[in-house]
Amino acid sequence: MITEQDCVALDVEDPLAGEAAKYYLPRGVLYFAGNSLGALPVAVHKSVISIIHDEWGKKLVGGWNSAGWYTSPSRVGAKIARLIGADADEVTVTDSTSVNLFKSIIAAMGLNTQRKVCLTDREIFPTDLYIMQGIEELLGEQFTLTAVKRDRILDEVGDDTGLVVLSHVDYRTGDVFDMRDITRRIHEAGGLVLWDLCHSAGIFDITLNEAKADFAVGCGYKFLNGGPGAPSFVYVARRHQENISQPLTGWMGHASPFAFDETYQSAAGIRKMLCGTPSIIAMGCLEAALDELLPVSMAAIRDKSTKLTRLFIELMKERCADFDFALISSENDDIRGSQISYTHEQGYVIMQALIANNVIGDFRAPDCVRFGVNPLYLSFMDIWRAVDSIKAIMETEAWREFQGQKKEAVT
Amino acid sequence: MITEQDCVALDVEDPLAGEAAKYYLPRGVLYFAGNSLGALPVAVHKSVISIIHDEWGKKLVGGWNSAGWYTSPSRVGAKIARLIGADADEVTVTDSTSVNLFKSIIAAMGLNTQRKVCLTDREIFPTDLYIMQGIEELLGEQFTLTAVKRDRILDEVGDDTGLVVLSHVDYRTGDVFDMRDITRRIHEAGGLVLWDLCHSAGIFDITLNEAKADFAVGCGYKFLNGGPGAPSFVYVARRHQENISQPLTGWMGHASPFAFDETYQSAAGIRKMLCGTPSIIAMGCLEAALDELLPVSMAAIRDKSTKLTRLFIELMKERCADFDFALISSENDDIRGSQISYTHEQGYVIMQALIANNVIGDFRAPDCVRFGVNPLYLSFMDIWRAVDSIKAIMETEAWREFQGQKKEAVT
Repeated sequence: MITEQDCVALDVEDPLAGEAAKYYLPRGVLYFAGNSLGALPVAVHKSVISIIHDEWGKKLVGGWNSAGWYTSPSRVGAKIARLIGADADEVTVTDSTSVNLFKSIIAAMGLNTQRKVCLTDREIFPTDLYIMQGIEELLGEQFTLTAVKRDRILDEVGDDTGLVVLSHVDYRTGDVFDMRDITRRIHEAGGLVLWDLCHSAGIFDITLNEAKADFAVGCGYKFLNGGPGAPSFVYVARRHQENISQPLTGWMGHASPFAFDETYQSAAGIRKMLCGTPSIIAMGCLEAALDELLPVSMAAIRDKSTKLTRLFIELMKERCADFDFALISSENDDIRGSQISYTHEQGYVIMQALIANNVIGDFRAPDCVRFGVNPLYLSFMDIWRAVDSIKAIMETEAWREFQGQKKEAVT
Repeated sequence: MITEQDCVALDVEDPLAGEAAKYYLPRGVLYFAGNSLGALPVAVHKSVISIIHDEWGKKLVGGWNSAGWYTSPSRVGAKIARLIGADADEVTVTDSTSVNLFKSIIAAMGLNTQRKVCLTDREIFPTDLYIMQGIEELLGEQFTLTAVKRDRILDEVGDDTGLVVLSHVDYRTGDVFDMRDITRRIHEAGGLVLWDLCHSAGIFDITLNEAKADFAVGCGYKFLNGGPGAPSFVYVARRHQENISQPLTGWMGHASPFAFDETYQSAAGIRKMLCGTPSIIAMGCLEAALDELLPVSMAAIRDKSTKLTRLFIELMKERCADFDFALISSENDDIRGSQISYTHEQGYVIMQALIANNVIGDFRAPDCVRFGVNPLYLSFMDIWRAVDSIKAIMETEAWREFQGQKKEAVT
């Protein structure tokens, strides 16, 4: 049996223990929703005040040049590139994930217009599906969306498949796809791959270029801690950059935005993925968050994450086995992402009770409770305390009575 | 002749004189680029710190509900609606102007697919042109872009014209289009109108509904003072909302984003114009800026703006007539927007000298110097001082010599 003292001992030996001081969390809160919205990096405060006062306030419109606003999509993109195994000139930061999906999918499908099928996992995060449905509606027979069950995807890749859109990590279970193997197999069938990194950027040692990925998008507000609605990033492998075009041809993607030409001429390289004017304040928050994350070894993050999630699973087995939680995350360390999900018939009510008890996870319909684990601000003792709270809630008299009534009704 | 004392007297009687204290400007700076990036409202500081610490920091992911983040596009949209003559449920805030142009133009053209021509002013702000060129490239024969000279537009509206895209105010000259008359004439020919309000929102008493406008977009960072790259707004007249669909079908535009359905079903009303997750921090800066602007009478703003720009023109005539500036803004108060533009062969050099002298206007290629006038933070004496600086620069010995050499070379 794992004891509280064992957890304390793990914290004492944790090389990342000092990182938690860099994030603000309210007293007593155990935060397990960093896979939905990352916690506030303390450094954001200073950074945002500097952008507002020293840049916007003092440099005014001159800030576009003298404060580096104009180049910020590339500068922040280069920082994200280091986290996802890409080169600096393959990533830019702009718009939302949904908008970047739209641009990237159309750009990718334009590389081989003979292949009109865009294939995806029907259980991918819904906005990915919705964006593809919108493109299908818009482009008619030029674009056919095929959404299949996950285990059918590789079998479905055919001569007509232009692009496969996959999430690197499943948002419900946290399971990780094998990026390198899947990319290779899709390439062998002549298709391209777009990886949605929303649930993996900042928590995995992602190796886009080693895996020979084609396109990727991801969000700034989950494990990158960039704040609510932080800008999104988009990756295009260098080998594709010259040949793609994307339809959201706003002035920031023009070769010379300030020439005020009458005709759009796309910028070279990754900058052609830009569209309108980016929010500099939102960009600054994300950059400050990245500057906290970048010095930390991604291998150390992944290692601690794996240990924390394994501990969560073990403690739930040892202490909460009687309460009908069904683990839907993998017990295989290599497949399990940085989140633990259970289904439970009363999942919604249980999560409400946990949140009221300062254990902040989240619920995904119809019956899934999720515990996102960010090793930068969660300790081994936090896992102990969270499972302790779950146990306490399930053992309250009110809950026992409620369960008892239900069982009587069934029998 | 207008004297410095006359300008002081105008300031003494100015009912908006107290507004300037609400905006931060560096000491000695005369800021004439508020039509490009509005100055910093002091209230933004408090607001952004509150969003970061009290909302993101303390409410964490719960902020989407408890801090009103989820409804912020509608809430901030309703505030902008009051400035542009729209109803609260006709405006939302999301994405960039370029992205909103893309969505709105495709939505508008979808209302009558028999009319395949989208007509515009070839001198409209370039990003409008670029976005339409991108749509033409994407949709092929379903969409034909016709860009003509401004004075030809009404003659060009024909049976095949689905939509006319116009800027309410010309970004070079500052001239204002007659929204009501032009909208009426385009409607008589069976077309719809999309107004780009980037250069007029916050400085004119815009009356979209009285003019029976169909669609509008605008930016948050010029006269709305929302900060660099602030989110954009989009207006759809209520009569069109049920029948339109737009192609950027991200999850925030779904009828039930948190149901995680597999099929996109658009929200009712203006919310269907949303796409991805909005930046809450950028939204908060814009909202704080709007809260400063909304209590001020738009008629008073327009009145002072007209007086300031007229004073600028008069002083330039009286004091700088010898220096070859050619006024390209209108001398007609009804047509002139809140900016004064001159062409000058040496415009680029002159603007550099002015900026070095703390008179911050801007330059638009090939030869246009622009002085944007925001009456909330510019006084009549500021106009005096700006013209005084222009005069001083043109009278420096170096400049006289430079001009003399040029004249010799010509003769």
